[in-house]
Amino acid sequence: MTIEQLQEAVCQANLDLVAHGLVTLTWGNVSGLSDDRDVFAIKPSGVPYPELRPEHCVIVSVETGKVVQGDLKPSSDTATHRLLYQAFEGVGGITHTHSPKGTAFAQARREIPCYGTTHADHFYGPIPVTRPLSEEEINTDYEGNTGHVIIERFADLDPVAVPGVLVGSHAPFAWGAHAAESVKNAVALEAVAGMAIDTLALAPSVPPVDDYLLEKHYSRKHGPNAYYGQK
Amino acid sequence: MTIEQLQEAVCQANLDLVAHGLVTLTWGNVSGLSDDRDVFAIKPSGVPYPELRPEHCVIVSVETGKVVQGDLKPSSDTATHRLLYQAFEGVGGITHTHSPKGTAFAQARREIPCYGTTHADHFYGPIPVTRPLSEEEINTDYEGNTGHVIIERFADLDPVAVPGVLVGSHAPFAWGAHAAESVKNAVALEAVAGMAIDTLALAPSVPPVDDYLLEKHYSRKHGPNAYYGQK
Amino acid sequence: MTIEQLQEAVCQANLDLVAHGLVTLTWGNVSGLSDDRDVFAIKPSGVPYPELRPEHCVIVSVETGKVVQGDLKPSSDTATHRLLYQAFEGVGGITHTHSPKGTAFAQARREIPCYGTTHADHFYGPIPVTRPLSEEEINTDYEGNTGHVIIERFADLDPVAVPGVLVGSHAPFAWGAHAAESVKNAVALEAVAGMAIDTLALAPSVPPVDDYLLEKHYSRKHGPNAYYGQK
Amino acid sequence: MTIEQLQEAVCQANLDLVAHGLVTLTWGNVSGLSDDRDVFAIKPSGVPYPELRPEHCVIVSVETGKVVQGDLKPSSDTATHRLLYQAFEGVGGITHTHSPKGTAFAQARREIPCYGTTHADHFYGPIPVTRPLSEEEINTDYEGNTGHVIIERFADLDPVAVPGVLVGSHAPFAWGAHAAESVKNAVALEAVAGMAIDTLALAPSVPPVDDYLLEKHYSRKHGPNAYYGQK
Repeated sequence: MTIEQLQEAVCQANLDLVAHGLVTLTWGNVSGLSDDRDVFAIKPSGVPYPELRPEHCVIVSVETGKVVQGDLKPSSDTATHRLLYQAFEGVGGITHTHSPKGTAFAQARREIPCYGTTHADHFYGPIPVTRPLSEEEINTDYEGNTGHVIIERFADLDPVAVPGVLVGSHAPFAWGAHAAESVKNAVALEAVAGMAIDTLALAPSVPPVDDYLLEKHYSRKHGPNAYYGQK
Repeated sequence: MTIEQLQEAVCQANLDLVAHGLVTLTWGNVSGLSDDRDVFAIKPSGVPYPELRPEHCVIVSVETGKVVQGDLKPSSDTATHRLLYQAFEGVGGITHTHSPKGTAFAQARREIPCYGTTHADHFYGPIPVTRPLSEEEINTDYEGNTGHVIIERFADLDPVAVPGVLVGSHAPFAWGAHAAESVKNAVALEAVAGMAIDTLALAPSVPPVDDYLLEKHYSRKHGPNAYYGQK
Repeated sequence: MTIEQLQEAVCQANLDLVAHGLVTLTWGNVSGLSDDRDVFAIKPSGVPYPELRPEHCVIVSVETGKVVQGDLKPSSDTATHRLLYQAFEGVGGITHTHSPKGTAFAQARREIPCYGTTHADHFYGPIPVTRPLSEEEINTDYEGNTGHVIIERFADLDPVAVPGVLVGSHAPFAWGAHAAESVKNAVALEAVAGMAIDTLALAPSVPPVDDYLLEKHYSRKHGPNAYYGQK
Repeated sequence: MTIEQLQEAVCQANLDLVAHGLVTLTWGNVSGLSDDRDVFAIKPSGVPYPELRPEHCVIVSVETGKVVQGDLKPSSDTATHRLLYQAFEGVGGITHTHSPKGTAFAQARREIPCYGTTHADHFYGPIPVTRPLSEEEINTDYEGNTGHVIIERFADLDPVAVPGVLVGSHAPFAWGAHAAESVKNAVALEAVAGMAIDTLALAPSVPPVDDYLLEKHYSRKHGPNAYYGQK
């Protein structure tokens, strides 16, 4: 994939996020990684979605975090995206939203339990929530430290099997093999968050799905014949 | 109805499901049975809705479950549809969705009580929920066993009078005389599920409607002068 | 207003009901009364909204309940509309919906308390709920008796000041000086029902607004300079 | 900015409010102040949104409250807007809505706690709720007194840092440096109100965000390099 193709894919993924109804005002952004994992394209800061064009998507170095192509300022969440690309092998696209139901779980500082196959088709287990950032972490490199608490939360989790997280008191991040897939996982996260809120209202103590149901859905999508570990 | 007409009706029913707002990503599928109940047409797997054409709808044998016409792979839920057509006389169309409110009830493992005439106009009594599949049922012919637990749940129920079910920890299936009617019942199921969630929040111990109200609405639609038992 | 103008107004009001998002499938209907209160135009039964034309709207006699013009069958709720026109002076338009939040209150068999000015701007006090119909009332002239329990509920209420009701276990009816106004009141009813559900979740024992606030809003719209008692 | 440009901006802001889905029927209005703070343009009363043109926006004197340009009657909430412009330095645009989730908090007479960064990005602390108006305040200059209770509530609050309020038993007002920004804050208020309702359902006793997170988000937008105090 050329840089131009990457910009086009990332631009389209950002517009898809709007089409899926996950964007209020200008909240949210999508990025995508180059095949060699050297750079990523990300939504510029402050360009209204209707005016977004592929050439606006800013190219940023994974190693340095510096802009290597583009006249516009990249999204203010760029440092978070960059750290996740460095830490999460197999992840080639990242979507950040403030989608309402996912954000409600983030604000409640609760993980989203796996209550059904809709969830299990996309996330192998609960969607975790990070710890709150400390005062020092907030005041020093806030966006970078947002990435760090996500990575810390995934110390014992496989980010390909669980392609999303809730940053406590903040909002969801989702990811995938490429930008378009990260948008799909952000859409799935929001849908299962909404279903989980209603499930909890109807049955506050219903258990999550059994492990074998989770395993079944995981292996259908992530087994030897699936994309897991490929790209 | 020719096979071409069946494919057209099934294609349209799948698009209607989208138009009714019941589809997130590619979740959900509709099928329709031929007049002689020998084959059914079903949505292919993995074709985005905007590109869906009648000729993409795959023709599957009710007896063997094999594809008898079409180049595409049928929906992964094909085995469930097939078993329901075999078991449920008078059913000629099936819709599967992960619509949010119906899925919340499925995840809560609660039936949807009949709280009003909106419900009674479409379902003669509560919309039942199946038992969870066992580990063995999940690991051996998962989709077929999904059909089996639905059929088991309807041992003492009339699938024409109660044209829908919640698969526990999964999501709703709805059906009807033909594909279009199954979509309408899926829409009604989602609407009454949403209303029931709010009804329960407002009045946790409100009783379901009286039997004679249920009977009145049932007989208006399913009596000697209605389609019940016909086609 | 000629009969043709009445049909046009009623057709438009039915389409507006769809545009306001209050219609699922074909649930709901609007009617409007002639200036001399002799006949009313009402949505025909079973015509899909996109195909609805003014000439489809059926003209029914208020006195006899018989169709006096039109080839189509009128809405199955025609008997309810007719009785309300006979009983409620100053009402010239009626809207029936199964709008989700209003129907949730009807199913919960709870009135909608007046929690704020949005409500007070349209309804002078709580939106009442009827008693359930008896078995005999359901089995003998069901739609007529639906009208009767509404009228019974308004024995001590002014239908112009409180232009809507919840039929218990059923759904809302709203009305107004003409068809378009009845649609507006149906929209307001649904909006305040939704707000009331959330208000109750946030503050289960919050009192309704004070009488003087209710009075203020009522007199702004229904005082000597307003349409009350006029037409 | 000329008067014509102000009318154009205010007209557009009113249409944006509709586009953001915050308007039911004709509830809601936006105004914008001239650069010299002498007059403001406001939506006329009773003009349907699809017909709203810039020249319809009425020009009102801040000092006298009298219409100085325009043939139409200004919004019935004009007196409230005027008082806020007089009292709140740095505020150049005001939006009033009956948006459903914000109104639910107003009706519940509860402030919206700051549960996350979505809220902190727009409001430096909880969104406050006014006390109820007394009977006398309602019966004498109701709209003016609505302004007075807002101003009273902000005695110890900075309206630029907290650009919105809930009028108890009524609905939200939001504001900003100009009309367009007040619409954005109204959109944010509604979004965080909805998230807060779900947050409270998931975690009734979750604390609001820590002060340093609030401070961080505030200083990103309102520090020496931001628009606070400018305009």
